[in-house]
Amino acid sequence: MRLTCFTDYALRTLIYLGTAEPRQSSIAEVARAYGISENHLVKVVHQLGRLGLVRTTRGRGGGLRLGKAAAEIRIGEVVRATEEDLALVQCFAGGSCAITPACRLRNVLGEALAAFFAVLDRYTLADLLEPHAGRDLAGLLGLEPPQPVDASA
Amino acid sequence: MRLTCFTDYALRTLIYLGTAEPRQSSIAEVARAYGISENHLVKVVHQLGRLGLVRTTRGRGGGLRLGKAAAEIRIGEVVRATEEDLALVQCFAGGSCAITPACRLRNVLGEALAAFFAVLDRYTLADLLEPHAGRDLAGLLGLEPPQPVDASA
Repeated sequence: MRLTCFTDYALRTLIYLGTAEPRQSSIAEVARAYGISENHLVKVVHQLGRLGLVRTTRGRGGGLRLGKAAAEIRIGEVVRATEEDLALVQCFAGGSCAITPACRLRNVLGEALAAFFAVLDRYTLADLLEPHAGRDLAGLLGLEPPQPVDASA
Repeated sequence: MRLTCFTDYALRTLIYLGTAEPRQSSIAEVARAYGISENHLVKVVHQLGRLGLVRTTRGRGGGLRLGKAAAEIRIGEVVRATEEDLALVQCFAGGSCAITPACRLRNVLGEALAAFFAVLDRYTLADLLEPHAGRDLAGLLGLEPPQPVDASA
């Protein structure tokens, strides 16, 4: 039981963009930070753009940034939209099985999957970027940590 | 996100054996009932035997039956034991990721997986075989439905 690489990269891209905000990022930069394929990331970013989770500005001074506030991006929403196959077993995907009409396993697995997503729906991207983690993330990703606002200035 | 075919077949085998009880079954019979590969089932049954979930008696009059009562076989236990890979994302499986030290996504995914199994742990094989479903299952699997006990006899 594994999420696809596509979903994994989508989540990592959002974490990167959220950590880099308010500055814009590039696909090359995200790929380099994680040591992952730029070609693969192009498809991921394209899909995130279609979902409104990433906004791309073309041309000079262009780049990538989050398509909406981190607090409005639910992790459950991202996983549901990027996982192609949420059919836990063959019969969910339309495969035939002799006992389908009387099978209670389907209900049990469906209930377990709902519980899985209920947890993911409780968290937003902002929860993954909370101040402390956000600062650590910036360092790990080679990004400037956010500058503290000096209230006395 | 999908369970392996191995887990799917393991669950179906247990449903078959539980429906057929108290009579013994054979691998060929289970494979035929579901229209699935007998070779594949041999491995599944071997693993179920190692887990104590299936008992095999050799020789004439031998066959397969549940290794313990259906009410004592937790669905969560079966899935945990038959899924080889419960690493939802690369980093769970020991893969490297730049942000591992500060990553909160791991915790969130871990919590979601725990919720998934908490549901599966609430059900036993007996829940999948409840009287009404059990009778339907017997028909669908080509097995004699259990004979009602005539209390007046």
